[in-house]
Amino acid sequence: MIVVMRTDATMEQVNHVKELIREMGLKDHPIVGTELTVVAVIGDDRKKDRGRLEGAPGVDRVVPILVPYKIASRETKRERTVVRIGANCAVGGKQIPVIAGPCSVEGEKQIVAAAKACKEAGAHAIRGGAFKPRTNPYAFQGYGEDGLKMLAAARDATGLAVVTEVLTPSDVLIVSKYADCLQIGTRNSQNFKLLEACGDQPKPVLLKRGMSMTLGEMLQASEYILAGGNHNVILCERGIRTFEDHTRNTLSLSAVPELHYRSHLPVMIDPSHGTGHARLVPDMARAAVAAGADGLIVEVHPDPEHAWTDGAQSMTPASLGELIATLKRVALAVDREVV
Amino acid sequence: MIVVMRTDATMEQVNHVKELIREMGLKDHPIVGTELTVVAVIGDDRKKDRGRLEGAPGVDRVVPILVPYKIASRETKRERTVVRIGANCAVGGKQIPVIAGPCSVEGEKQIVAAAKACKEAGAHAIRGGAFKPRTNPYAFQGYGEDGLKMLAAARDATGLAVVTEVLTPSDVLIVSKYADCLQIGTRNSQNFKLLEACGDQPKPVLLKRGMSMTLGEMLQASEYILAGGNHNVILCERGIRTFEDHTRNTLSLSAVPELHYRSHLPVMIDPSHGTGHARLVPDMARAAVAAGADGLIVEVHPDPEHAWTDGAQSMTPASLGELIATLKRVALAVDREVV
Amino acid sequence: MIVVMRTDATMEQVNHVKELIREMGLKDHPIVGTELTVVAVIGDDRKKDRGRLEGAPGVDRVVPILVPYKIASRETKRERTVVRIGANCAVGGKQIPVIAGPCSVEGEKQIVAAAKACKEAGAHAIRGGAFKPRTNPYAFQGYGEDGLKMLAAARDATGLAVVTEVLTPSDVLIVSKYADCLQIGTRNSQNFKLLEACGDQPKPVLLKRGMSMTLGEMLQASEYILAGGNHNVILCERGIRTFEDHTRNTLSLSAVPELHYRSHLPVMIDPSHGTGHARLVPDMARAAVAAGADGLIVEVHPDPEHAWTDGAQSMTPASLGELIATLKRVALAVDREVV
Amino acid sequence: MIVVMRTDATMEQVNHVKELIREMGLKDHPIVGTELTVVAVIGDDRKKDRGRLEGAPGVDRVVPILVPYKIASRETKRERTVVRIGANCAVGGKQIPVIAGPCSVEGEKQIVAAAKACKEAGAHAIRGGAFKPRTNPYAFQGYGEDGLKMLAAARDATGLAVVTEVLTPSDVLIVSKYADCLQIGTRNSQNFKLLEACGDQPKPVLLKRGMSMTLGEMLQASEYILAGGNHNVILCERGIRTFEDHTRNTLSLSAVPELHYRSHLPVMIDPSHGTGHARLVPDMARAAVAAGADGLIVEVHPDPEHAWTDGAQSMTPASLGELIATLKRVALAVDREVV
Repeated sequence: MIVVMRTDATMEQVNHVKELIREMGLKDHPIVGTELTVVAVIGDDRKKDRGRLEGAPGVDRVVPILVPYKIASRETKRERTVVRIGANCAVGGKQIPVIAGPCSVEGEKQIVAAAKACKEAGAHAIRGGAFKPRTNPYAFQGYGEDGLKMLAAARDATGLAVVTEVLTPSDVLIVSKYADCLQIGTRNSQNFKLLEACGDQPKPVLLKRGMSMTLGEMLQASEYILAGGNHNVILCERGIRTFEDHTRNTLSLSAVPELHYRSHLPVMIDPSHGTGHARLVPDMARAAVAAGADGLIVEVHPDPEHAWTDGAQSMTPASLGELIATLKRVALAVDREVV
Repeated sequence: MIVVMRTDATMEQVNHVKELIREMGLKDHPIVGTELTVVAVIGDDRKKDRGRLEGAPGVDRVVPILVPYKIASRETKRERTVVRIGANCAVGGKQIPVIAGPCSVEGEKQIVAAAKACKEAGAHAIRGGAFKPRTNPYAFQGYGEDGLKMLAAARDATGLAVVTEVLTPSDVLIVSKYADCLQIGTRNSQNFKLLEACGDQPKPVLLKRGMSMTLGEMLQASEYILAGGNHNVILCERGIRTFEDHTRNTLSLSAVPELHYRSHLPVMIDPSHGTGHARLVPDMARAAVAAGADGLIVEVHPDPEHAWTDGAQSMTPASLGELIATLKRVALAVDREVV
Repeated sequence: MIVVMRTDATMEQVNHVKELIREMGLKDHPIVGTELTVVAVIGDDRKKDRGRLEGAPGVDRVVPILVPYKIASRETKRERTVVRIGANCAVGGKQIPVIAGPCSVEGEKQIVAAAKACKEAGAHAIRGGAFKPRTNPYAFQGYGEDGLKMLAAARDATGLAVVTEVLTPSDVLIVSKYADCLQIGTRNSQNFKLLEACGDQPKPVLLKRGMSMTLGEMLQASEYILAGGNHNVILCERGIRTFEDHTRNTLSLSAVPELHYRSHLPVMIDPSHGTGHARLVPDMARAAVAAGADGLIVEVHPDPEHAWTDGAQSMTPASLGELIATLKRVALAVDREVV
Repeated sequence: MIVVMRTDATMEQVNHVKELIREMGLKDHPIVGTELTVVAVIGDDRKKDRGRLEGAPGVDRVVPILVPYKIASRETKRERTVVRIGANCAVGGKQIPVIAGPCSVEGEKQIVAAAKACKEAGAHAIRGGAFKPRTNPYAFQGYGEDGLKMLAAARDATGLAVVTEVLTPSDVLIVSKYADCLQIGTRNSQNFKLLEACGDQPKPVLLKRGMSMTLGEMLQASEYILAGGNHNVILCERGIRTFEDHTRNTLSLSAVPELHYRSHLPVMIDPSHGTGHARLVPDMARAAVAAGADGLIVEVHPDPEHAWTDGAQSMTPASLGELIATLKRVALAVDREVV
């Protein structure tokens, strides 16, 4: 880190900062400029609280230099990570899988029908919520373990791997038992106990970006899972919260090349939550593939007008089929494949 | 809710929307305007998914009318709620308490000394983290139950009530055993399982606003606790995430009068996280009191330069004492009291 | 608009609202629901100030229904507008032009060389700033009319049309004389006098989105130009201001399909300002084409390390050439063309 | 500035960066850390484009150290600036003036009546728009010079100084002729030609913060006026654009102490635009005074339900009178005065 002194800082204040740095077990390197002095800190300061220096007299601000994640960093591992979900779906390689399905599991019949329709349309895995995080306490909260069994039935009926959300540490084992991939939702992206619990089980984890998370914070969240020994983490941009009002969230596609630049982990895009409107999903899905995304997760419901949740952003299986046909073409244009 | 049709919507599409509304068990009321048609929905639509209508053909958008919380609403309960923390601290009445203490419990000696110094300076309760939510997985995570015992020792030494954070449902009972008030942090503000668990224990709950939460979402989060039977909820604005870079967060003080307008629950302000810089805390604390806040929660450390966490935003006990002296004057100016 | 009354509103207050609506020359249509009353307003309320109703006793809020722009609206004109820039560049048709060039005109030699290199690389028009809006008053402000002459020389040397920014109404005539298309920058997107002046001259206008503008506000800004009689307006998304810190702005690509949904005007993307980093430009340019953009405007400098301004986000002509080669493939995949 | 190299940067790349720095007329100072190398730049780099270095091979990012404004900086002038508006209103001293009046000048009778009522209520200057910046091109645009004459009549009738907005450089002289203080609105806060024109006339300038402007950018905008020789600049926070939906803007009161920390210029607050709802104005006005604001500018209309513009956020003169009575008490509590 770099400690920037105020222009009117005294020599005594600079010396005090130097002492604090040494107390932290680090080396100081002061640089006297024409207008002010800065003190560079040498050593691994990632576990140190820079607040200690920020509050010291004469200090204007402290600028961090080292990134606060390690295992997720591309500097630690240059080759890209490929994460396998079930037997037939890989994220991070040349092929770009599409994970599709309804927001909620509404019954075995519905989820099996949805899975079959998604497979027919060309999807590579299915999604569906058994445990639902709902902003409104009076809204449908999901079927829980029964929902997981219905998802397993859908897998049995189609051969498609199952991705489903886990909400709390005590549910991790049961979700891990039924699902092929655990999803951590945007509202739990800094639920550190949940991240740790997901790091301590064998299934891959799809980590959604928090709606007001920077990419640095997202990589730190992934580090909680990685540090637990589970290296199969997929990062997923799903829209951030901004002032925009034409979409439910602002889908920030530049997260794809930037996360690829900083990390070896694969990056997916969720254009359904990222926009909130089914009519915007196809264009944004194509844009995601063109931007280099390693996969897509899309809400599809056999009958959106009767979906229990998220009907506005759910596509029909027929429109998914049309979308996948065009995704194949865009993927080829950027030397990838949707098969 | 109001369903706004596109200007080119057909009569058939309007009729289809009317049918969908009736299927949902609600009544439709179409209004044909000079430029377009809207269909008003009559009945309690709070548990219905408006996405079902948003996706229907010819629909431009759906505008919700009813607020999605009930128990938290001022329309349900006109008189203001007063929440008691321990024997001597009440939030929501004429008196405005100041809860002060370090970010982290760093040891029994430190927390007892901090509590004594805060009491001396005029604080009415103490805060300190035993379970720490850390963005960086390599940073100090708190002492856990040992930290809770140290907080209890600080209470024994001073008579001040203890407010401390709980991170995950399985810790709720242990934190509830030691603390006088459970705090739910910004990153857990939509951890619905944790909200539910806090609704199912007897201690009051201090609910921090999520950093990208609207006030409507915050009241829905409080509703999870209230619906569980625990009506002692304190709302706390602690800064939201915006583009501003001179503060760690943007402290949105208009949340105070607006939450008072919408709800009977008391509203506190955290000027420490709300700014991230100790030098901005006093002015914002005074502003909070002038805006009508029912309490303050402030980070104070006996030696900020050696704080393990959040040193930059921690005041010293001496500056807390000076601040409380001026808060007394501002409180009187708005017919409140800091005693 | 819809006036939502408070749940405790009296009949007298509802009647007062009805009177205010009639005073405004509009018709009222009250709807008594199970929980509250709303009053729908019938008639063209676009020129009315809804604040008059919002402040009335018993009113909770007022929800606008009609969009506040007309000429820009797709409901006014269903077929897409094609805007011609010079003789050889059209925006809004099947072909997707790439406008390229340096941030600033740094001299005749530089801009002519840049134009030649951009043409060689496959660009369809050139950009370059003669009048520069600079956040920092001590930074280079552009060559003014001399810069316009240098741009004209670059056009003469290459046959490429010239797009350049105009900063203030009194410069509109001179810029209009030299340029083929006038650009209005993000900081002037609500400089209404400038918008009006651009509506009163014959050259097409490239209107950049303000960095905190909603799409509705952007279409209202375009309406200023359109209402002056100039129907050749190109809308350009160039990134919005959010909390994100890995890019200079957050490029919101969903603006493309949404603007196409609301308006008949063509939509371009500026991936250079939209990211601020040359290394992110190619992926976002490809994503823009896949999302349906009608054109791209990209910063290219023959020697970015010696660019006077915006070096970090400028591509080299060689990398532009490679980008255009891949854009051709992506365009074909979505049934468009880069020729 | 500090150039942060990538961890895998080569010695050659570091040397190239050093050369670029020397080419810019600055000195380089490399620091080899345990994980990466940074190159500190020594000298006044405020007029240099750091993009040149950001794009160089092996560079991860460039961190600016020096602030890009000078005359506005508190380091240039330690004592606080007091700006006089007319004969009887000073901003920046012990007394805190309240500038009040309607959004628009709607006629001589209205503005004279409004001015008298505001004076009666205790206001120290009047505001009112003759030139109106309107998002909607079909909305009322103001009376122009006739409106200025009406404002002058209101001044004659009350002795109160007049603050009014100027929209474009060619109107600066005429507004400067009639007004006691020129206001630059949020949408023009980076209209650099307008800023320059206001720097070149003798009346004080009230500069509103742009709705997505950082404080650093705001001080740079003020520098445009100051650098022209006009040192009578008042900074005004009026709310920023965020995701919040309960207010028209998010009033960021921490701007007050932070601008006071960085600059000697006085700082006002506009709680009317800052919230958009008259019912929130009094609490936020009191909070502003408690936060250290040097003045307030408030929308007041004799009959808000018949205001032509901004009715929802306009107070009545009676409520202004009540507000000022409480402001006097809050001001005394923080050792200031409202007289």
